[in-house]
Amino acid sequence: MENRELSELLSAHFAAWEHMSAIEQKQMLTNADLISYTQGITVYNGENDCVGFMIIKSGRLRVYMLSEEGKEITLYRLDHGDMCILSASCVLSSITFDVHIEAEENTDVFVVGSVKFAELIKNNIYIECFSYKLATDRFSDVMWAMQQILFMSMDKRLAIFLWDELAKSEGDVIHITHEQVARYIGSAREVVTRMLKYFAGEGIVELSRGGIKVIDKGKLRKLTL
Amino acid sequence: MENRELSELLSAHFAAWEHMSAIEQKQMLTNADLISYTQGITVYNGENDCVGFMIIKSGRLRVYMLSEEGKEITLYRLDHGDMCILSASCVLSSITFDVHIEAEENTDVFVVGSVKFAELIKNNIYIECFSYKLATDRFSDVMWAMQQILFMSMDKRLAIFLWDELAKSEGDVIHITHEQVARYIGSAREVVTRMLKYFAGEGIVELSRGGIKVIDKGKLRKLTL
Repeated sequence: MENRELSELLSAHFAAWEHMSAIEQKQMLTNADLISYTQGITVYNGENDCVGFMIIKSGRLRVYMLSEEGKEITLYRLDHGDMCILSASCVLSSITFDVHIEAEENTDVFVVGSVKFAELIKNNIYIECFSYKLATDRFSDVMWAMQQILFMSMDKRLAIFLWDELAKSEGDVIHITHEQVARYIGSAREVVTRMLKYFAGEGIVELSRGGIKVIDKGKLRKLTL
Repeated sequence: MENRELSELLSAHFAAWEHMSAIEQKQMLTNADLISYTQGITVYNGENDCVGFMIIKSGRLRVYMLSEEGKEITLYRLDHGDMCILSASCVLSSITFDVHIEAEENTDVFVVGSVKFAELIKNNIYIECFSYKLATDRFSDVMWAMQQILFMSMDKRLAIFLWDELAKSEGDVIHITHEQVARYIGSAREVVTRMLKYFAGEGIVELSRGGIKVIDKGKLRKLTL
């Protein structure tokens, strides 16, 4: 059952799949574990960690950088069907940095262990090629995040974040704390709170204990442009 | 002559070279142009630009991001034997961002045009694979730069920059303006000048019209750690 689900995921998203022999496909399937991560848990810990190749069955992972002082920068998120190669960074010699990954929701992930994945890569250039291609996809995500963090003014960053969250929410309320917002956009809670109050003053949002209610989507949208 | 030099560069640095047929190798060699860029000139302009694959013969290129307001962030530098794939970003579908490149010194570069390079990639998985591997190498460089810019305190950043420049200079004087330092480390000139004056006060450097003289390497080194 798991096997069939994984097989479908891989043939849909893992572009090297069609270039793999039946034996290789079977090796990948039988060496994958389905792991369930509870919301909030650390999936991958950067340094000295090399879990393996991941493909997300359900839920959501957040990939971020962490400074020595504990400051976080969100790089990107991974949803159903997305694959994570940075969690197998030890397999690819060109990846010389580390990231952290947490489960943003309850998340089910198929994991192919590093040793097995390294073996597959070693014997099939298409798998290696696809792995580096995946890394390059993430490079593009990170460059986008960098652009946002380094160049954009705070109000724009916050507006874009709220706009994205709104699209994922049911209704107009985003259930999130200011602390969480700050972590996601790489800022400080005080700065987020101040900016949210400013947004409230402008009639864009209403703040409550439960979260942030967007009351003027048009104005919010304008700020994101 | 050019041909032989390029051939040597490629066989030493372009790891896919040994997996290319004699015909492919010849196609790559005959389709490469040697281009000379004067110091300070823009080599690559981001958006709507797709020069091709580059391998640096001599000199130095600086790759940076540019905000709408003209703020620059240096991502990494390329020297003799280094290759640039982001200047052929149109060839690799996974690269969805743009960078800018300038010649930091007088620089000679062999360039294989995008159309030809795309053709080579299309017909040889090893070339494609190596191209994505190169992109991933640069990903690692960018993550390093991000770590520096986002997480490090200014004094440490400046110290690391001076330390690196010192290693490349003859003697103890770094010939550079505060404005240039600011651009390289992604800061403002005022901030750099203030910090340099602080360094001078600490007896680490001496400031003059011609540049920055390091007078206490031990102290400077300590700041970089």
